[in-house]
Amino acid sequence: MRTELCDKFGIEYPIFGFTPSEHVAAAISRAGGLGVLGCVRFNDPEELEAVLVWMDNNTDGKPYGVDIVMPAKVPTEGTSMDLDAMIPDEHRAFVDRTLNDLGVPPLATGVEHAAGVLGWLHSVARAHVDVALRHPIALIANALGSPPKDVIDQAHERGVPVAALAGAVSHARHHVENGVDIVIAQGYEAGGHTGEIASMVLVPEIVDAVGDDAHVLAAGGIGSGRQVAAALALGAQGVWMGSYWLTCSEYKLGSAAGSDGPSVVQRALLGATSADTVRTRIFSGKPARLLKTKWTDAWSKPDAPSPLPMPLQNILVSDAHRRIADSSDPEVVAMPVGQIVGRMNEIRPVADVMAELVSGFDSAATRIATAAAR
Amino acid sequence: MRTELCDKFGIEYPIFGFTPSEHVAAAISRAGGLGVLGCVRFNDPEELEAVLVWMDNNTDGKPYGVDIVMPAKVPTEGTSMDLDAMIPDEHRAFVDRTLNDLGVPPLATGVEHAAGVLGWLHSVARAHVDVALRHPIALIANALGSPPKDVIDQAHERGVPVAALAGAVSHARHHVENGVDIVIAQGYEAGGHTGEIASMVLVPEIVDAVGDDAHVLAAGGIGSGRQVAAALALGAQGVWMGSYWLTCSEYKLGSAAGSDGPSVVQRALLGATSADTVRTRIFSGKPARLLKTKWTDAWSKPDAPSPLPMPLQNILVSDAHRRIADSSDPEVVAMPVGQIVGRMNEIRPVADVMAELVSGFDSAATRIATAAAR
Repeated sequence: MRTELCDKFGIEYPIFGFTPSEHVAAAISRAGGLGVLGCVRFNDPEELEAVLVWMDNNTDGKPYGVDIVMPAKVPTEGTSMDLDAMIPDEHRAFVDRTLNDLGVPPLATGVEHAAGVLGWLHSVARAHVDVALRHPIALIANALGSPPKDVIDQAHERGVPVAALAGAVSHARHHVENGVDIVIAQGYEAGGHTGEIASMVLVPEIVDAVGDDAHVLAAGGIGSGRQVAAALALGAQGVWMGSYWLTCSEYKLGSAAGSDGPSVVQRALLGATSADTVRTRIFSGKPARLLKTKWTDAWSKPDAPSPLPMPLQNILVSDAHRRIADSSDPEVVAMPVGQIVGRMNEIRPVADVMAELVSGFDSAATRIATAAAR
Repeated sequence: MRTELCDKFGIEYPIFGFTPSEHVAAAISRAGGLGVLGCVRFNDPEELEAVLVWMDNNTDGKPYGVDIVMPAKVPTEGTSMDLDAMIPDEHRAFVDRTLNDLGVPPLATGVEHAAGVLGWLHSVARAHVDVALRHPIALIANALGSPPKDVIDQAHERGVPVAALAGAVSHARHHVENGVDIVIAQGYEAGGHTGEIASMVLVPEIVDAVGDDAHVLAAGGIGSGRQVAAALALGAQGVWMGSYWLTCSEYKLGSAAGSDGPSVVQRALLGATSADTVRTRIFSGKPARLLKTKWTDAWSKPDAPSPLPMPLQNILVSDAHRRIADSSDPEVVAMPVGQIVGRMNEIRPVADVMAELVSGFDSAATRIATAAAR
């Protein structure tokens, strides 16, 4: 299973694995793919620096990348305090009432209130870029639109290719005009921020729209070798997988970092079917696919307020996310995940997932070759 | 491009083409696929009889099938008059007001009011089955759930396999338990009645769920050979295409039957992108993907009533559909179509479409083989 992207990046398989966990990202790179570390959780650039040092020491010299979230439109900047003032009382009251109704305990005394995901602010994202470019990264990806032109130029000066997610042909064209090297065609079925065109339609549209100006990865709904083969059939040169790594044994973040066995989030994911997701603006202010839980249900009831625009919505729910993360109820999880969650049914090491991707691809390739030859 | 379904049906390619047009259905069969005639538009079984006689005379002895819409739940039966009484005045007033606002002319004087699609009633659907089984049909498909058990038995007694659409694994399992031979895994991106799981995720789920108990066709988002290859990579043994034939030159129905050049509906489809569809209950009462037009927009406004349950909603809008069909405004079309509409950009004969499906499949197969061999 090789395409020209393997040569370009010096990787064994054209599998790009996005994850907020450095343990998973490093394991993906060691297993022959390209691990891409999601940086949005690092509000402090020094935290990112420490984790990238760890990556440098744990990837056996294999390449890895980073994902930095830079919104296409520059949002209002300011400290968390300034932004706090823009959140209506009605929204705060709804969040408090809902968490109480769902039996989610308050934050422990003495714990600071969360500042929200400041990584969504341009200033923080640029600090992430500066930190990342001091490491031997192989890719900078942006989950929200094209990165700013000067960031693309800065990456290219260091010889680092830039990737950007696209949910529509118009996004893809815009990326290519801005100098993006790799367009990630992300279908409706994907987790997190996602559009409305499904992969089967979107991937060939974007492949044709960008032509030879960029490479295309398929994202959304991919968790098996059959799906990698389908992505390549549709014209992509590789795949971008995010959700599927969440049930890997290496995935331990936040309060689950020190524990054994599946975390609360992993238990919620293991039990979900492909129908148990919902596309909603409650996580960040932009439409994103989340696991359907009592938390998402509460926001879809008639008495729920409309979600706020990015970045305000995430600041509104950031304490709620921490309270939910600290509680132990798999039915009240706040977690972005794609429809592939229906096939995330056991906790496995990254290396096992990668081995199935390769063998499943080979089986699909044989099936296609047989149909072509008959 | 052959799978075991080609042997089972005596067809050249595993391309199943659903269409309400006998001209398109016959052309698909003549071109090496299996044309499947949608029968829901025939309120009178005698009309269907005449069209099937035409099919027998115009398919060069190649096999063809029929699609008969039988809801899983038996709806209230009755004459159109009885059902008329169940439609609220508020709904009728909204339809009238909307058509006036959109400038759609009234029906010509002397034209009878439409009875709605009576094909959705069990009694009519069973008459369709009786008529169809007097012809050498190769397949009976049902677009809404499993056909009733006695219909499946009746078909099997004549040696005719039965197919049913599934938007979820649970539907597929139910079909197989009821004796359905071919499960059509229909993804979110499909036109007409459709679920929420996209093809990339749904097809392998259903392939694994039915195992050796049934064959699986992939439906939703398919209009090129690359997408056929993707469907086979996902484990399907063939594809079911509906939308893509709507812009074939053989497609002439209703008021467009005698005219040259693209019909109003075709002009609307040719200009649409993959983002120009909407999944709504306004066509039939069940969620169906339609071309996004001023008509669908009107139903999504705050003052619009909620759509009625099947079959009432279709009876409510049946006169409106005829008025819209008779008008000449591509912006006020009421037409089921999938997201593949973004690639339906020219009027072509069925044979040309089929040739591209085959050559596009071969190119994709070569690409996959290259990636597998590197």
